[in-house]
Amino acid sequence: MTNMLLASTSTMFGSAFLEYLLPELEIFFENVDTITFVPYARPSGASHDSYTQTAQEAFKKIGKKVVGIHTYDSAIEGLEKAEAIFVGGGNSFVLLNAIYENGLLEPLRERIKAGIPYLGSSAGINLVGKSIATTNDMPIVYPPSFLALHMVPFNFNAHYLDPDPKSTHKGETRETRIQEFHTYNETPVLGLREGNWIRVQGNDYTLCGPGTVRLFRKGKAAEETDLIPSE
Amino acid sequence: MTNMLLASTSTMFGSAFLEYLLPELEIFFENVDTITFVPYARPSGASHDSYTQTAQEAFKKIGKKVVGIHTYDSAIEGLEKAEAIFVGGGNSFVLLNAIYENGLLEPLRERIKAGIPYLGSSAGINLVGKSIATTNDMPIVYPPSFLALHMVPFNFNAHYLDPDPKSTHKGETRETRIQEFHTYNETPVLGLREGNWIRVQGNDYTLCGPGTVRLFRKGKAAEETDLIPSE
Repeated sequence: MTNMLLASTSTMFGSAFLEYLLPELEIFFENVDTITFVPYARPSGASHDSYTQTAQEAFKKIGKKVVGIHTYDSAIEGLEKAEAIFVGGGNSFVLLNAIYENGLLEPLRERIKAGIPYLGSSAGINLVGKSIATTNDMPIVYPPSFLALHMVPFNFNAHYLDPDPKSTHKGETRETRIQEFHTYNETPVLGLREGNWIRVQGNDYTLCGPGTVRLFRKGKAAEETDLIPSE
Repeated sequence: MTNMLLASTSTMFGSAFLEYLLPELEIFFENVDTITFVPYARPSGASHDSYTQTAQEAFKKIGKKVVGIHTYDSAIEGLEKAEAIFVGGGNSFVLLNAIYENGLLEPLRERIKAGIPYLGSSAGINLVGKSIATTNDMPIVYPPSFLALHMVPFNFNAHYLDPDPKSTHKGETRETRIQEFHTYNETPVLGLREGNWIRVQGNDYTLCGPGTVRLFRKGKAAEETDLIPSE
């Protein structure tokens, strides 16, 4: 049974990395000693170490160890040895590209299906959607495909922002962009605002945090709802 | 000699399509009767017609005819018959994908090199950069490559927005995203704000409109400048 905690953002304004989620993570990782961190959404090299350190400092507060998947001889080995997975945010194109390069797409899918606790934030939730085609990120690398893990029957739009009625900027709003996505795609899109997360336990999807999500379906008006579409 | 007018946006807040640029366009298209419009950045079908109509209405004010490239038997034929080209804004992934699908990349490059007047706005300027890897658009279709016309020695970031010091949103700023681009790429990036355009005449690049551009180079601090890098 899948067991995921999918958060729009790792960090709320004015608070430390994961701080707002720690009480929830203490429960989510109750039976876990060590969390395997996937830092791939940040550029490779030194930044993988420093990003992992940020995660280590956050999880220390609830008594959990964190090990970077990049410290194993191979990412496959890191995944095999993992008790739990945390995929952090950054750039979704960089993340998905690294998942493909390391041959992790199918092995990761299998472990999630088998029930490994999976925590994702920002790019880390785009990765469990059908594709990354509704990311806000800049396409700074060209991945072999936009298709992602497809562990939920929709795409995410992380850090969802409502249109600013006072804006004079002529770039498209988030809502317009997602409507354009639906001229080419059928997949529903979940606009998840900062401060919200989804708990997935098998087919049971629960919205957590304040308010509702904005759900976009092809050919329908966008709606505010707390009912998350499951399979 | 290349002859291009490259505008960050087609439309300024509170004014009609191209309105702010019409005095400039009257000069730019002085020796042109008919402009061939490329509406590909908008979803196909009816929207190509309506988008072309919008362009027709704007250019009517300065006595120019506009014909959609999609109305020819083939896009290649449309390009061959063109006196001048206007590539309108929309989604850069959709635009570049259509350019590839219609086999236009190399023929369009040749015509621009040969000096056909080229007007681009928004996605239409991303198209003349080295790649679309610094677009703000949502990746709603997967093009065969991010590589674009490369008629200028940099990438654009259209609708460039300065960071909002009052923002509490944790999504990345435009500047952060472009810095991340430079962890993978050498290409300079020109942040062009709404209301600015670049006139290109061979190797002569002139910034027009108020203020400066924000120029990002790998390994250097971003700078405000009116000197546009040419070959």
